[in-house]
Amino acid sequence: MDEFQKMLAGELYNPSDNNLSLMRARTRKLIDNFNHSSFEEEQSRLKLLKSLLGKAGNNISIHQNFYCDYGCNIYVGSNFFANYDCVILDCAEVHFGDNCMLGPQVGIYTATHPLDPIERASGLESAKPIHIGNDCWIGGHATINPGVTLGNNVVVASGSVVTKSFGHNLVIGGNPARVIRELKCSSGTTPEEKEAK
Amino acid sequence: MDEFQKMLAGELYNPSDNNLSLMRARTRKLIDNFNHSSFEEEQSRLKLLKSLLGKAGNNISIHQNFYCDYGCNIYVGSNFFANYDCVILDCAEVHFGDNCMLGPQVGIYTATHPLDPIERASGLESAKPIHIGNDCWIGGHATINPGVTLGNNVVVASGSVVTKSFGHNLVIGGNPARVIRELKCSSGTTPEEKEAK
Amino acid sequence: MDEFQKMLAGELYNPSDNNLSLMRARTRKLIDNFNHSSFEEEQSRLKLLKSLLGKAGNNISIHQNFYCDYGCNIYVGSNFFANYDCVILDCAEVHFGDNCMLGPQVGIYTATHPLDPIERASGLESAKPIHIGNDCWIGGHATINPGVTLGNNVVVASGSVVTKSFGHNLVIGGNPARVIRELKCSSGTTPEEKEAK
Repeated sequence: MDEFQKMLAGELYNPSDNNLSLMRARTRKLIDNFNHSSFEEEQSRLKLLKSLLGKAGNNISIHQNFYCDYGCNIYVGSNFFANYDCVILDCAEVHFGDNCMLGPQVGIYTATHPLDPIERASGLESAKPIHIGNDCWIGGHATINPGVTLGNNVVVASGSVVTKSFGHNLVIGGNPARVIRELKCSSGTTPEEKEAK
Repeated sequence: MDEFQKMLAGELYNPSDNNLSLMRARTRKLIDNFNHSSFEEEQSRLKLLKSLLGKAGNNISIHQNFYCDYGCNIYVGSNFFANYDCVILDCAEVHFGDNCMLGPQVGIYTATHPLDPIERASGLESAKPIHIGNDCWIGGHATINPGVTLGNNVVVASGSVVTKSFGHNLVIGGNPARVIRELKCSSGTTPEEKEAK
Repeated sequence: MDEFQKMLAGELYNPSDNNLSLMRARTRKLIDNFNHSSFEEEQSRLKLLKSLLGKAGNNISIHQNFYCDYGCNIYVGSNFFANYDCVILDCAEVHFGDNCMLGPQVGIYTATHPLDPIERASGLESAKPIHIGNDCWIGGHATINPGVTLGNNVVVASGSVVTKSFGHNLVIGGNPARVIRELKCSSGTTPEEKEAK
Protein backbone atom coordinates (compact mmCIF):
# COMPACT_ATOMS: atom_id res chain seq x y z
CA MET A 1 0.00 0.00 0.00
CA ASP A 2 1.20 3.53 -0.71
CA GLU A 3 0.83 6.29 1.89
CA PHE A 4 -2.50 7.51 0.45
CA GLN A 5 -3.93 4.00 0.72
CA LYS A 6 -2.60 3.60 4.27
CA MET A 7 -4.15 6.95 5.19
CA LEU A 8 -7.57 5.92 3.91
CA ALA A 9 -7.26 2.50 5.56
CA GLY A 10 -6.81 4.05 9.00
CA GLU A 11 -3.20 2.89 9.32
CA LEU A 12 -0.22 4.97 10.45
CA TYR A 13 1.04 6.91 7.43
CA ASN A 14 3.61 9.55 6.67
CA PRO A 15 1.97 12.87 5.69
CA SER A 16 5.33 14.17 4.41
CA ASP A 17 5.16 11.57 1.65
CA ASN A 18 5.79 13.21 -1.71
CA ASN A 19 2.51 12.18 -3.29
CA LEU A 20 0.43 13.33 -0.30
CA SER A 21 2.31 16.63 -0.14
CA LEU A 22 1.57 17.26 -3.81
CA MET A 23 -2.10 16.42 -3.28
CA ARG A 24 -2.37 18.86 -0.38
CA ALA A 25 -0.58 21.53 -2.40
CA ARG A 26 -3.11 21.15 -5.21
CA THR A 27 -5.94 21.36 -2.65
CA ARG A 28 -4.58 24.47 -0.96
CA LYS A 29 -4.34 26.22 -4.30
CA LEU A 30 -8.00 25.44 -4.97
CA ILE A 31 -8.93 26.56 -1.45
CA ASP A 32 -6.97 29.78 -1.80
CA ASN A 33 -8.82 30.49 -5.03
CA PHE A 34 -12.14 29.58 -3.46
CA ASN A 35 -11.64 31.69 -0.34
CA HIS A 36 -10.41 34.68 -2.29
CA SER A 37 -13.18 34.53 -4.86
CA SER A 38 -16.07 36.92 -4.56
CA PHE A 39 -19.42 35.41 -3.54
CA GLU A 40 -20.74 36.97 -6.75
CA GLU A 41 -18.72 34.62 -8.96
CA GLU A 42 -21.25 31.91 -8.19
CA GLN A 43 -20.54 29.71 -11.19
CA SER A 44 -16.78 29.83 -10.77
CA ARG A 45 -17.11 29.08 -7.03
CA LEU A 46 -19.31 26.08 -7.76
CA LYS A 47 -16.81 24.86 -10.35
CA LEU A 48 -13.99 25.18 -7.80
CA LEU A 49 -16.03 23.23 -5.23
CA LYS A 50 -16.74 20.46 -7.72
CA SER A 51 -13.06 20.07 -8.55
CA LEU A 52 -12.21 20.25 -4.84
CA LEU A 53 -14.65 17.70 -3.41
CA GLY A 54 -14.67 13.94 -3.95
CA LYS A 55 -18.40 14.10 -4.69
CA ALA A 56 -20.75 17.05 -4.81
CA GLY A 57 -24.52 16.65 -5.18
CA ASN A 58 -26.87 19.26 -6.57
CA ASN A 59 -27.39 22.56 -4.82
CA ILE A 60 -24.32 22.83 -2.62
CA SER A 61 -22.97 25.99 -1.07
CA ILE A 62 -20.03 26.69 1.22
CA HIS A 63 -19.29 30.08 2.74
CA GLN A 64 -15.76 31.42 3.08
CA ASN A 65 -13.33 30.82 4.67
CA PHE A 66 -13.46 27.07 4.21
CA TYR A 67 -10.46 24.84 4.83
CA CYS A 68 -9.77 21.16 4.27
CA ASP A 69 -6.72 18.93 3.72
CA TYR A 70 -7.42 16.96 0.55
CA GLY A 71 -10.98 17.74 -0.52
CA CYS A 72 -11.14 14.57 -2.62
CA ASN A 73 -12.06 12.63 0.54
CA ILE A 74 -15.17 14.74 1.18
CA TYR A 75 -18.37 13.23 -0.26
CA VAL A 76 -21.33 15.54 -0.14
CA GLY A 77 -24.95 14.74 -1.02
CA SER A 78 -27.50 17.12 -2.50
CA ASN A 79 -28.62 20.30 -0.75
CA PHE A 80 -25.47 20.78 1.30
CA PHE A 81 -24.70 24.02 3.05
CA ALA A 82 -21.72 24.99 5.22
CA ASN A 83 -21.74 28.41 6.87
CA TYR A 84 -18.74 30.69 7.58
CA ASP A 85 -15.36 29.42 8.82
CA CYS A 86 -15.85 25.66 8.72
CA VAL A 87 -12.86 23.31 8.75
CA ILE A 88 -12.97 19.70 7.55
CA LEU A 89 -9.80 17.67 8.04
CA ASP A 90 -10.39 14.94 5.49
CA CYS A 91 -7.39 12.65 5.86
CA ALA A 92 -9.94 9.87 6.03
CA GLU A 93 -13.23 9.95 4.13
CA VAL A 94 -15.98 12.29 5.28
CA HIS A 95 -19.46 11.45 3.99
CA PHE A 96 -22.54 13.63 4.18
CA GLY A 97 -25.99 12.37 3.10
CA ASP A 98 -28.55 14.63 1.46
CA ASN A 99 -29.95 17.79 3.04
CA CYS A 100 -27.12 18.38 5.51
CA MET A 101 -26.16 21.75 6.89
CA LEU A 102 -23.29 22.98 8.99
CA GLY A 103 -23.52 26.12 11.10
CA PRO A 104 -20.58 28.53 11.21
CA GLN A 105 -17.22 27.71 12.81
CA VAL A 106 -17.82 23.94 12.74
CA GLY A 107 -14.82 21.59 12.96
CA ILE A 108 -14.98 18.09 11.46
CA TYR A 109 -11.74 16.26 12.16
CA THR A 110 -10.77 12.81 10.87
CA ALA A 111 -7.09 13.36 11.73
CA THR A 112 -5.57 11.90 14.85
CA HIS A 113 -2.07 11.34 16.23
CA PRO A 114 -0.40 8.61 18.29
CA LEU A 115 -0.71 9.02 22.07
CA ASP A 116 2.91 7.95 22.50
CA PRO A 117 4.97 11.16 22.34
CA ILE A 118 7.96 9.60 20.57
CA GLU A 119 5.76 8.01 17.94
CA ARG A 120 3.82 11.29 17.64
CA ALA A 121 7.01 13.32 17.20
CA SER A 122 8.02 10.98 14.35
CA GLY A 123 5.34 12.70 12.28
CA LEU A 124 3.42 9.51 11.53
CA GLU A 125 -0.30 9.94 11.98
CA SER A 126 -3.61 8.23 11.24
CA ALA A 127 -7.21 9.10 10.49
CA LYS A 128 -10.68 7.67 10.97
CA PRO A 129 -13.63 8.25 8.61
CA ILE A 130 -16.69 10.29 9.57
CA HIS A 131 -20.18 9.48 8.29
CA ILE A 132 -23.03 11.94 8.59
CA GLY A 133 -26.48 10.66 7.50
CA ASN A 134 -29.23 12.43 5.59
CA ASP A 135 -31.00 15.48 7.00
CA CYS A 136 -28.38 16.28 9.64
CA TRP A 137 -28.01 19.78 11.00
CA ILE A 138 -24.72 20.43 12.78
CA GLY A 139 -24.91 23.59 14.88
CA GLY A 140 -22.29 26.33 14.93
CA HIS A 141 -19.02 25.78 16.84
CA ALA A 142 -19.66 22.03 17.00
CA THR A 143 -16.75 19.58 16.85
CA ILE A 144 -17.03 16.13 15.23
CA ASN A 145 -14.24 13.76 16.25
CA PRO A 146 -12.47 11.08 14.16
CA GLY A 147 -14.49 7.92 13.59
CA VAL A 148 -17.91 9.37 14.43
CA THR A 149 -21.00 8.16 12.57
CA LEU A 150 -24.28 10.05 12.88
CA GLY A 151 -27.55 8.54 11.61
CA ASN A 152 -30.25 10.32 9.67
CA ASN A 153 -32.00 13.38 11.05
CA VAL A 154 -29.50 14.14 13.80
CA VAL A 155 -29.42 17.69 15.13
CA VAL A 156 -26.11 18.54 16.83
CA ALA A 157 -26.53 21.44 19.24
CA SER A 158 -24.20 24.41 18.85
CA GLY A 159 -20.89 24.04 20.68
CA SER A 160 -21.21 20.25 21.02
CA VAL A 161 -18.15 18.02 21.04
CA VAL A 162 -19.18 14.73 19.43
CA THR A 163 -16.84 12.00 20.62
CA LYS A 164 -18.83 8.88 19.71
CA SER A 165 -21.41 7.67 17.20
CA PHE A 166 -25.18 8.16 17.44
CA GLY A 167 -28.21 6.65 15.66
CA HIS A 168 -31.16 8.27 13.90
CA ASN A 169 -33.66 10.99 14.84
CA LEU A 170 -31.89 12.63 17.75
CA VAL A 171 -30.93 15.99 19.13
CA ILE A 172 -27.50 15.62 20.73
CA GLY A 173 -25.52 18.24 22.62
CA GLY A 174 -22.91 19.05 25.25
CA ASN A 175 -19.25 18.24 25.78
CA PRO A 176 -19.08 15.31 25.35
CA ALA A 177 -22.31 15.20 23.33
CA ARG A 178 -25.18 13.16 24.77
CA VAL A 179 -28.76 12.57 23.63
CA ILE A 180 -30.85 15.60 24.57
CA ARG A 181 -34.06 14.53 22.89
CA GLU A 182 -35.41 11.89 20.54
CA LEU A 183 -37.13 13.14 17.42
CA LYS A 184 -40.31 11.32 16.44
CA CYS A 185 -40.05 12.00 12.76
CA SER A 186 -38.00 9.59 10.69
CA SER A 187 -36.40 10.83 7.52
CA GLY A 188 -36.27 7.35 6.10
CA THR A 189 -33.46 5.09 5.09
CA THR A 190 -29.81 5.26 6.02
CA PRO A 191 -27.22 6.00 3.34
CA GLU A 192 -26.19 2.32 3.56
CA GLU A 193 -29.76 1.12 2.96
CA LYS A 194 -30.00 3.57 0.08
CA GLU A 195 -26.82 2.22 -1.50
CA ALA A 196 -28.02 -1.35 -1.01
CA LYS A 197 -31.11 -0.65 -3.09
CA MET B 1 -45.79 40.59 5.81
CA ASP B 2 -42.87 40.22 3.41
CA GLU B 3 -40.09 37.72 4.10
CA PHE B 4 -37.87 40.31 5.83
CA GLN B 5 -40.70 41.18 8.21
CA LYS B 6 -41.44 37.49 8.88
CA MET B 7 -37.74 36.92 9.58
CA LEU B 8 -37.61 39.73 12.14
CA ALA B 9 -40.90 38.60 13.70
CA GLY B 10 -39.49 35.15 14.43
CA GLU B 11 -41.78 33.40 11.96
CA LEU B 12 -40.78 30.80 9.38
CA TYR B 13 -39.44 32.63 6.34
CA ASN B 14 -37.82 31.80 3.03
CA PRO B 15 -34.16 32.93 2.95
CA SER B 16 -34.08 32.40 -0.84
CA ASP B 17 -36.55 35.27 -1.22
CA ASN B 18 -35.28 37.73 -3.81
CA ASN B 19 -35.20 40.75 -1.50
CA LEU B 20 -33.36 38.87 1.29
CA SER B 21 -30.86 37.44 -1.20
CA LEU B 22 -30.10 40.93 -2.48
CA MET B 23 -29.66 42.23 1.06
CA ARG B 24 -27.21 39.43 1.91
CA ALA B 25 -25.33 40.06 -1.35
CA ARG B 26 -24.91 43.74 -0.43
CA THR B 27 -23.73 42.71 3.05
CA ARG B 28 -21.22 40.19 1.77
CA LYS B 29 -19.71 42.80 -0.52
CA LEU B 30 -19.24 45.14 2.45
CA ILE B 31 -17.81 42.30 4.52
CA ASP B 32 -15.41 41.29 1.75
CA ASN B 33 -14.21 44.88 1.56
CA PHE B 34 -13.94 45.10 5.33
CA ASN B 35 -12.04 41.84 5.74
CA HIS B 36 -9.68 42.61 2.88
CA SER B 37 -8.97 46.15 4.04
CA SER B 38 -5.74 46.85 5.86
CA PHE B 39 -6.04 47.64 9.58
CA GLU B 40 -4.21 50.86 8.70
CA GLU B 41 -7.14 52.22 6.71
CA GLU B 42 -8.84 53.04 9.99
CA GLN B 43 -11.21 55.69 8.66
CA SER B 44 -12.33 53.61 5.69
CA ARG B 45 -12.85 50.55 7.93
CA LEU B 46 -14.97 52.59 10.33
CA LYS B 47 -17.01 53.92 7.41
CA LEU B 48 -17.58 50.36 6.17
CA LEU B 49 -18.68 49.26 9.64
CA LYS B 50 -21.11 52.17 9.91
CA SER B 51 -22.73 51.29 6.59
CA LEU B 52 -22.75 47.61 7.56
CA LEU B 53 -24.32 47.77 11.03
CA GLY B 54 -27.87 48.78 11.94
CA LYS B 55 -26.51 51.07 14.65
CA ALA B 56 -22.94 51.85 15.64
CA GLY B 57 -22.06 53.89 18.72
CA ASN B 58 -18.87 55.82 19.23
CA ASN B 59 -15.53 54.06 19.47
CA ILE B 60 -16.24 50.71 17.87
CA SER B 61 -13.66 48.31 16.52
CA ILE B 62 -13.94 44.88 14.94
CA HIS B 63 -10.97 42.73 14.00
CA GLN B 64 -10.85 40.68 10.82
CA ASN B 65 -12.22 38.27 9.72
CA PHE B 66 -15.70 39.25 10.76
CA TYR B 67 -18.78 37.65 9.24
CA CYS B 68 -22.49 38.34 9.52
CA ASP B 69 -25.61 37.77 7.39
CA TYR B 70 -27.31 41.16 7.12
CA GLY B 71 -25.42 43.59 9.33
CA CYS B 72 -28.41 45.94 9.44
CA ASN B 73 -29.87 43.82 12.26
CA ILE B 74 -26.83 44.37 14.52
CA TYR B 75 -27.23 47.27 16.94
CA VAL B 76 -24.05 48.18 18.76
CA GLY B 77 -23.64 50.68 21.61
CA SER B 78 -20.58 52.80 22.31
CA ASN B 79 -17.17 51.32 23.08
CA PHE B 80 -17.71 48.04 21.27
CA PHE B 81 -14.86 45.70 20.47
CA ALA B 82 -14.88 42.33 18.71
CA ASN B 83 -11.62 40.41 18.46
CA TYR B 84 -10.45 38.13 15.62
CA ASP B 85 -12.74 35.70 13.77
CA CYS B 86 -16.12 36.52 15.28
CA VAL B 87 -19.33 35.47 13.52
CA ILE B 88 -22.73 37.07 14.15
CA LEU B 89 -25.68 35.50 12.35
CA ASP B 90 -28.14 38.39 12.49
CA CYS B 91 -31.27 37.02 10.86
CA ALA B 92 -33.05 38.39 13.91
CA GLU B 93 -31.93 41.53 15.72
CA VAL B 94 -28.77 41.44 17.84
CA HIS B 95 -28.45 44.24 20.39
CA PHE B 96 -25.35 45.15 22.37
CA GLY B 97 -25.43 47.80 25.10
CA ASP B 98 -22.49 50.10 25.78
CA ASN B 99 -19.00 48.89 26.71
CA CYS B 100 -19.32 45.38 25.34
CA MET B 101 -16.42 43.28 24.17
CA LEU B 102 -16.18 39.96 22.39
CA GLY B 103 -13.09 37.78 22.60
CA PRO B 104 -11.78 36.03 19.50
CA GLN B 105 -13.64 33.21 17.70
CA VAL B 106 -17.00 34.07 19.31
CA GLY B 107 -20.21 32.87 17.63
CA ILE B 108 -23.50 34.73 18.13
CA TYR B 109 -26.27 32.91 16.32
CA THR B 110 -29.88 34.08 15.95
CA ALA B 111 -30.56 31.60 13.13
CA THR B 112 -32.38 28.37 13.76
CA HIS B 113 -34.03 25.66 11.69
CA PRO B 114 -37.10 23.44 12.08
CA LEU B 115 -36.52 20.19 13.98
CA ASP B 116 -38.71 18.33 11.51
CA PRO B 117 -36.38 17.13 8.74
CA ILE B 118 -38.90 17.55 5.91
CA GLU B 119 -39.72 21.08 7.00
CA ARG B 120 -35.99 21.77 7.45
CA ALA B 121 -35.15 20.46 3.98
CA SER B 122 -37.75 22.84 2.53
CA GLY B 123 -35.28 25.64 3.29
CA LEU B 124 -37.68 27.58 5.49
CA GLU B 125 -36.01 28.81 8.66
CA SER B 126 -36.57 31.16 11.57
CA ALA B 127 -34.57 33.31 13.95
CA LYS B 128 -34.76 34.65 17.49
CA PRO B 129 -33.29 37.98 18.66
CA ILE B 130 -30.32 38.22 21.04
CA HIS B 131 -29.97 41.02 23.58
CA ILE B 132 -26.68 41.69 25.35
CA GLY B 133 -26.78 44.36 28.07
CA ASN B 134 -24.24 47.04 28.93
CA ASP B 135 -20.74 46.17 30.14
CA CYS B 136 -20.77 42.57 28.94
CA TRP B 137 -17.57 40.72 28.20
CA ILE B 138 -18.02 37.60 26.11
CA GLY B 139 -14.94 35.39 26.29
CA GLY B 140 -13.21 33.80 23.32
CA HIS B 141 -14.77 30.74 21.65
CA ALA B 142 -18.10 31.39 23.40
CA THR B 143 -21.37 30.56 21.65
CA ILE B 144 -24.57 32.57 22.18
CA ASN B 145 -27.70 30.74 21.05
CA PRO B 146 -30.86 32.17 19.42
CA GLY B 147 -33.20 34.01 21.80
CA VAL B 148 -30.68 34.60 24.60
CA THR B 149 -30.85 37.79 26.66
CA LEU B 150 -27.96 38.72 28.97
CA GLY B 151 -28.33 41.49 31.53
CA ASN B 152 -25.79 44.19 32.33
CA ASN B 153 -22.30 43.33 33.49
CA VAL B 154 -22.34 39.69 32.47
CA VAL B 155 -18.98 37.98 31.94
CA VAL B 156 -19.24 34.90 29.72
CA ALA B 157 -16.31 32.54 30.33
CA SER B 158 -14.30 31.46 27.30
CA GLY B 159 -15.71 28.41 25.53
CA SER B 160 -19.18 28.77 27.11
CA VAL B 161 -22.29 27.69 25.25
CA VAL B 162 -25.07 30.01 26.35
CA THR B 163 -28.40 28.27 25.79
CA LYS B 164 -30.71 30.41 27.96
CA SER B 165 -31.06 33.94 29.31
CA PHE B 166 -29.35 35.35 32.40
CA GLY B 167 -29.81 38.48 34.55
CA HIS B 168 -27.34 41.15 35.67
CA ASN B 169 -23.93 41.05 37.37
CA LEU B 170 -22.89 37.47 36.76
CA VAL B 171 -20.00 35.35 35.58
CA ILE B 172 -21.45 32.46 33.59
CA GLY B 173 -19.59 29.55 32.05
CA GLY B 174 -19.64 25.96 30.85
CA ASN B 175 -21.58 23.95 28.31
CA PRO B 176 -24.43 24.65 28.85
CA ALA B 177 -23.50 27.89 30.64
CA ARG B 178 -24.46 28.17 34.30
CA VAL B 179 -23.86 30.88 36.92
CA ILE B 180 -20.28 30.57 38.18
CA ARG B 181 -20.27 33.63 40.39
CA GLU B 182 -22.38 36.66 41.21
CA LEU B 183 -20.70 40.03 40.80
CA LYS B 184 -21.41 42.59 43.53
CA CYS B 185 -20.91 45.61 41.37
CA SER B 186 -23.89 46.87 39.42
CA SER B 187 -23.27 48.85 36.28
CA GLY B 188 -26.65 50.51 36.56
CA THR B 189 -29.68 50.55 34.35
CA THR B 190 -30.69 48.17 31.59
CA PRO B 191 -30.74 49.43 27.99
CA GLU B 192 -34.57 49.37 28.23
CA GLU B 193 -34.56 51.55 31.35
CA LYS B 194 -32.10 53.86 29.62
CA GLU B 195 -34.35 54.19 26.60
CA ALA B 196 -37.37 54.80 28.82
CA LYS B 197 -35.66 57.83 30.37
CA MET C 1 7.85 50.42 34.26
CA ASP C 2 6.46 51.30 30.84
CA GLU C 3 3.18 49.80 29.60
CA PHE C 4 4.93 46.93 27.78
CA GLN C 5 6.75 45.96 30.97
CA LYS C 6 3.53 46.21 33.01
CA MET C 7 1.78 44.00 30.44
CA LEU C 8 4.45 41.30 30.67
CA ALA C 9 4.51 41.55 34.47
CA GLY C 10 0.79 40.73 34.70
CA GLU C 11 -0.15 44.19 35.98
CA LEU C 12 -2.99 46.37 34.73
CA TYR C 13 -1.78 48.23 31.65
CA ASN C 14 -3.18 50.53 29.02
CA PRO C 15 -3.32 48.82 25.59
CA SER C 16 -3.94 52.21 23.92
CA ASP C 17 -0.43 53.24 24.93
CA ASN C 18 1.43 54.64 21.92
CA ASN C 19 4.29 52.14 22.00
CA LEU C 20 1.99 49.12 22.34
CA SER C 21 -0.25 50.40 19.55
CA LEU C 22 2.76 50.73 17.26
CA MET C 23 3.92 47.22 18.15
CA ARG C 24 0.49 45.76 17.36
CA ALA C 25 0.40 47.70 14.09
CA ARG C 26 3.74 46.21 13.05
CA THR C 27 2.45 42.74 13.99
CA ARG C 28 -0.79 43.10 12.08
CA LYS C 29 1.11 44.10 8.98
CA LEU C 30 3.23 40.94 9.25
CA ILE C 31 0.12 38.85 9.89
CA ASP C 32 -1.69 40.38 6.92
CA ASN C 33 1.30 39.51 4.74
CA PHE C 34 1.50 36.03 6.20
CA ASN C 35 -2.21 35.27 5.80
CA HIS C 36 -2.32 36.62 2.28
CA SER C 37 0.81 34.81 1.15
CA SER C 38 0.45 31.67 -0.89
CA PHE C 39 1.39 28.41 0.84
CA GLU C 40 3.79 27.91 -2.07
CA GLU C 41 6.01 30.81 -0.99
CA GLU C 42 7.41 28.56 1.72
CA GLN C 43 10.65 30.45 2.27
CA SER C 44 9.01 33.84 2.46
CA ARG C 45 6.33 32.50 4.86
CA LEU C 46 9.02 31.07 7.11
CA LYS C 47 10.88 34.37 7.04
CA LEU C 48 7.70 36.20 8.02
CA LEU C 49 7.10 33.76 10.88
CA LYS C 50 10.65 34.23 12.16
CA SER C 51 10.29 38.01 12.22
CA LEU C 52 6.84 37.66 13.81
CA LEU C 53 7.60 35.27 16.68
CA GLY C 54 9.75 35.91 19.74
CA LYS C 55 11.52 32.60 19.18
CA ALA C 56 11.09 30.03 16.44
CA GLY C 57 12.80 26.64 16.53
CA ASN C 58 13.58 24.49 13.53
CA ASN C 59 10.81 23.03 11.41
CA ILE C 60 7.86 25.21 12.27
CA SER C 61 4.71 25.59 10.23
CA ILE C 62 1.52 27.56 10.76
CA HIS C 63 -1.52 27.35 8.48
CA GLN C 64 -3.57 30.40 7.56
CA ASN C 65 -5.42 32.29 8.89
CA PHE C 66 -3.31 32.80 11.98
CA TYR C 67 -3.81 35.75 14.31
CA CYS C 68 -1.94 37.06 17.32
CA ASP C 69 -1.51 40.41 19.10
CA TYR C 70 2.25 40.97 19.35
CA GLY C 71 3.98 37.84 18.08
CA CYS C 72 7.18 38.74 19.90
CA ASN C 73 5.74 37.19 23.06
CA ILE C 74 5.30 33.77 21.42
CA TYR C 75 8.22 31.40 22.00
CA VAL C 76 8.08 28.26 19.94
CA GLY C 77 10.37 25.21 20.16
CA SER C 78 11.37 22.95 17.30
CA ASN C 79 8.86 20.94 15.28
CA PHE C 80 5.90 23.22 15.88
CA PHE C 81 2.73 22.98 13.86
CA ALA C 82 -0.48 25.00 14.08
CA ASN C 83 -3.36 24.02 11.82
CA TYR C 84 -5.98 26.31 10.21
CA ASP C 85 -7.56 29.30 11.98
CA CYS C 86 -5.63 29.36 15.27
CA VAL C 87 -5.61 32.49 17.43
CA ILE C 88 -2.95 33.24 20.06
CA LEU C 89 -3.51 36.37 22.15
CA ASP C 90 0.04 36.96 23.37
CA CYS C 91 -0.25 39.98 25.63
CA ALA C 92 1.71 37.89 28.11
CA GLU C 93 4.35 35.35 27.08
CA VAL C 94 3.26 32.09 25.48
CA HIS C 95 5.86 29.31 25.54
CA PHE C 96 5.75 26.06 23.61
CA GLY C 97 8.33 23.33 24.15
CA ASP C 98 9.54 21.09 21.32
CA ASN C 99 7.27 18.87 19.23
CA CYS C 100 4.03 20.70 19.91
CA MET C 101 1.06 20.72 17.61
CA LEU C 102 -2.19 22.63 17.59
CA GLY C 103 -5.27 21.37 15.78
CA PRO C 104 -7.42 23.77 13.77
CA GLN C 105 -9.50 26.58 15.33
CA VAL C 106 -7.56 26.52 18.62
CA GLY C 107 -7.67 29.61 20.87
CA ILE C 108 -4.81 30.40 23.26
CA TYR C 109 -5.66 33.47 25.27
CA THR C 110 -3.38 35.25 27.75
CA ALA C 111 -5.55 38.37 27.73
CA THR C 112 -7.98 39.06 30.53
CA HIS C 113 -10.04 42.01 31.76
CA PRO C 114 -11.08 43.34 35.16
CA LEU C 115 -14.30 41.83 36.55
CA ASP C 116 -15.38 45.26 37.79
CA PRO C 117 -17.35 46.83 34.91
CA ILE C 118 -16.20 50.38 35.56
CA GLU C 119 -12.56 49.31 35.67
CA ARG C 120 -13.14 47.15 32.58
CA ALA C 121 -14.73 50.01 30.66
CA SER C 122 -11.66 52.14 31.43
CA GLY C 123 -9.83 50.01 28.87
CA LEU C 124 -7.14 48.87 31.31
CA GLU C 125 -6.47 45.16 31.03
CA SER C 126 -3.99 42.51 32.13
CA ALA C 127 -2.57 39.21 30.93
CA LYS C 128 -1.17 35.98 32.35
CA PRO C 129 1.51 33.84 30.66
CA ILE C 130 0.80 30.39 29.22
CA HIS C 131 3.39 27.59 29.27
CA ILE C 132 2.99 24.48 27.15
CA GLY C 133 5.61 21.75 27.70
CA ASN C 134 7.30 19.49 25.18
CA ASP C 135 5.35 16.97 23.10
CA CYS C 136 1.95 18.54 23.66
CA TRP C 137 -0.89 18.02 21.22
CA ILE C 138 -3.73 20.48 21.56
CA GLY C 139 -6.83 19.24 19.76
CA GLY C 140 -8.96 21.32 17.44
CA HIS C 141 -11.38 23.90 18.87
CA ALA C 142 -9.62 23.75 22.26
CA THR C 143 -9.38 26.88 24.40
CA ILE C 144 -6.40 27.57 26.70
CA ASN C 145 -7.12 30.22 29.34
CA PRO C 146 -4.76 32.88 30.76
CA GLY C 147 -2.20 31.57 33.25
CA VAL C 148 -2.41 27.90 32.28
CA THR C 149 0.70 25.71 32.41
CA LEU C 150 0.69 22.26 30.81
CA GLY C 151 3.48 19.78 31.48
CA ASN C 152 5.20 17.57 28.92
CA ASN C 153 3.25 15.09 26.82
CA VAL C 154 -0.18 16.51 27.48
CA VAL C 155 -2.91 15.72 24.96
CA VAL C 156 -5.78 18.19 25.09
CA ALA C 157 -8.95 16.67 23.65
CA SER C 158 -10.73 18.59 20.90
CA GLY C 159 -13.16 21.20 22.16
CA SER C 160 -11.65 21.31 25.67
CA VAL C 161 -11.69 24.49 27.71
CA VAL C 162 -8.54 24.45 29.84
CA THR C 163 -9.10 26.68 32.86
CA LYS C 164 -6.27 25.51 35.15
CA SER C 165 -2.79 23.98 34.99
CA PHE C 166 -1.96 20.30 34.59
CA GLY C 167 1.18 18.18 35.02
CA HIS C 168 2.92 15.71 32.69
CA ASN C 169 1.73 12.70 30.66
CA LEU C 170 -2.00 13.27 30.61
CA VAL C 171 -4.96 13.30 28.32
CA ILE C 172 -7.27 16.10 29.46
CA GLY C 173 -10.66 17.03 28.09
CA GLY C 174 -14.07 18.57 28.67
CA ASN C 175 -15.38 21.99 29.70
CA PRO C 176 -13.76 22.69 32.09
CA ALA C 177 -10.96 20.26 31.18
CA ARG C 178 -10.29 17.41 33.60
CA VAL C 179 -7.89 14.46 33.50
CA ILE C 180 -9.35 11.79 31.20
CA ARG C 181 -6.40 9.42 31.29
CA GLU C 182 -2.81 9.19 32.50
CA LEU C 183 -0.22 8.34 29.89
CA LYS C 184 2.47 5.88 30.94
CA CYS C 185 5.12 7.15 28.63
CA SER C 186 7.26 10.04 29.84
CA SER C 187 8.82 12.31 27.27
CA GLY C 188 11.53 13.32 29.68
CA THR C 189 12.51 16.57 31.23
CA THR C 190 10.49 19.75 31.58
CA PRO C 191 11.57 22.85 29.64
CA GLU C 192 12.80 24.29 32.97
CA GLU C 193 14.96 21.23 33.68
CA LYS C 194 16.25 21.45 30.13
CA GLU C 195 17.22 25.10 30.56
CA ALA C 196 18.85 24.34 33.90
CA LYS C 197 21.19 21.88 32.22
